[in-house]
Amino acid sequence: MSDAGGTTRRRGRPRGTESAGTRDRILATAREEFSERGYEKTSVRGIAKAAGVDPALVHHYFGTKEQVFEAAVEVAFAPAMDAPETIAEGPLDAVGERLTRFVLGVWENPATRAPLLAILRSAVNNETAATVFRRLIVGRLLRRVAAQLNLPDAELRVELAAAQLVGCAMLRYVIRVEPLASADPEQIVARLAPVVQGHLTGP
Amino acid sequence: MSDAGGTTRRRGRPRGTESAGTRDRILATAREEFSERGYEKTSVRGIAKAAGVDPALVHHYFGTKEQVFEAAVEVAFAPAMDAPETIAEGPLDAVGERLTRFVLGVWENPATRAPLLAILRSAVNNETAATVFRRLIVGRLLRRVAAQLNLPDAELRVELAAAQLVGCAMLRYVIRVEPLASADPEQIVARLAPVVQGHLTGP
Repeated sequence: MSDAGGTTRRRGRPRGTESAGTRDRILATAREEFSERGYEKTSVRGIAKAAGVDPALVHHYFGTKEQVFEAAVEVAFAPAMDAPETIAEGPLDAVGERLTRFVLGVWENPATRAPLLAILRSAVNNETAATVFRRLIVGRLLRRVAAQLNLPDAELRVELAAAQLVGCAMLRYVIRVEPLASADPEQIVARLAPVVQGHLTGP
Repeated sequence: MSDAGGTTRRRGRPRGTESAGTRDRILATAREEFSERGYEKTSVRGIAKAAGVDPALVHHYFGTKEQVFEAAVEVAFAPAMDAPETIAEGPLDAVGERLTRFVLGVWENPATRAPLLAILRSAVNNETAATVFRRLIVGRLLRRVAAQLNLPDAELRVELAAAQLVGCAMLRYVIRVEPLASADPEQIVARLAPVVQGHLTGP
């Protein structure tokens, strides 16, 4: 956490298009750096260098390295953050299929797979990154799905459903075991949707 | 793979108790180093130093860094390598519960959890370590369970069952999401065994 040194200058943040552009560029660079190197090997200094700015400016916009990471992950997940409502909306007896399709969808899409992989790698290796994972994925995504289930053990149900999907992603996209890695996505949906549904609404 | 340099002296391997002791000490040290640092940050030089031997001796006994890793993982899993037969033996309608109890058992046991965590961390971050994971866990453990199922899609079934268990281990032991991380193991067996059974023998 040496990156979090006392270099923040929170007052007088510049406004306007140009500074918003700089902020976005830093964020995009941070995403790339975290994706390529993982949480531990990425530094605020390295992000600043790659973005062509002073490290103090990175701290100014985002704070500590952990906060830069969280902001980068949040941006990567922005398209997915409306998902909980979409997943929980509609008939409850198809919620398992909607959640399964959503998770497979973000993993099948190369644009969302890279940041997901980066979070997963970082969360497995680093406690700070694991905390961000818990806060974002579990706190925002899973808790919201659980809230709509309206069952006393909803959180455990959602987590066991998530475990099936996270494990499938691990074996299919990260470790790439065959035949799972090459299986047709529709075949996987057909196998996993009932299981996820069972966790969420089963007896 | 620079550790794989041409330092192997395969001829004239010393025999007897003393050399067996040295070999075991190198292996135990390798296990610790890989567990603590992960695959990428561990070097044959570092293992040799920690074991108090010349790096050439590590190469002599085990070959490349990948081969040292595989040997270390194999030793860590030796107690589990009879598991496939045990899991597949007995009534087929309880194979899901046996597999679930086996996987939770090795994760609940601190002695086997550390090497498992090391493999998982390494396999997520490094392609060579992922290959070792595929060869050992999938090739030996899962394929053997699949062989006893005697179903045309047995391998995919076993992998989807494994996905449920790997994902549960990720969320419970690695990322530690609540309430799953603190749930009673028997409660988890009760929830997961039918799912694992369904993957293995369901329609």
